[in-house]
Amino acid sequence: MDHQECHQHLNAIEDAVYVIGGKWKLRIILSLQQQALRFNEIQREVGGISAKVLSNELKDLEENGFVKRREYPGFPMKVVYELTDYSNSLKSVMIELSQWGRSHKEFIKRNHQA
Amino acid sequence: MDHQECHQHLNAIEDAVYVIGGKWKLRIILSLQQQALRFNEIQREVGGISAKVLSNELKDLEENGFVKRREYPGFPMKVVYELTDYSNSLKSVMIELSQWGRSHKEFIKRNHQA
Repeated sequence: MDHQECHQHLNAIEDAVYVIGGKWKLRIILSLQQQALRFNEIQREVGGISAKVLSNELKDLEENGFVKRREYPGFPMKVVYELTDYSNSLKSVMIELSQWGRSHKEFIKRNHQA
Repeated sequence: MDHQECHQHLNAIEDAVYVIGGKWKLRIILSLQQQALRFNEIQREVGGISAKVLSNELKDLEENGFVKRREYPGFPMKVVYELTDYSNSLKSVMIELSQWGRSHKEFIKRNHQA
């Protein structure tokens, strides 16, 4: 891998970690995996997140194409958030990270017992 | 996936993102991919990192088993840092993240042009 390829590789990884990193994004995505939820349902499901932070995170997730906002007419209007088909693209990365995270924890335990 | 599995899955992902996230870890790992380097060589290769931060990051990478410190006797003593075999366990995660990061960038470009 030459220098330029290495930098492209690094930038792509950092982009990915930026999008799925952070304290809340994955928690919000996982909370919506079963069904669409209202704002306060997400807030309750995720737990410990302020309305302001959740609002920003949802906007970010919408911009990145993972979440869509759906409005149902009526009074009061009903708004729910749901995962897009595109959010499925995250599955393989999340499985890879999850498997690696688990095996790394085992590795650390073994090394600290040795 | 029931609630408990979901939380284990999430914790494992967050562990992984914690270990390989952050501004410097991946840059330091990639800088050592070709060969072992001295402290100031890493600092020059990575660029923009202070000695104090680099020292902490190297300690963290050592504790996580990715990097080992090798001392060569002599005056002055020569110290180099190199990647461990275990750091190869990161390869598949980094490739997955890199591929996803690239395709996500394309997705965002297409959507913002639409």
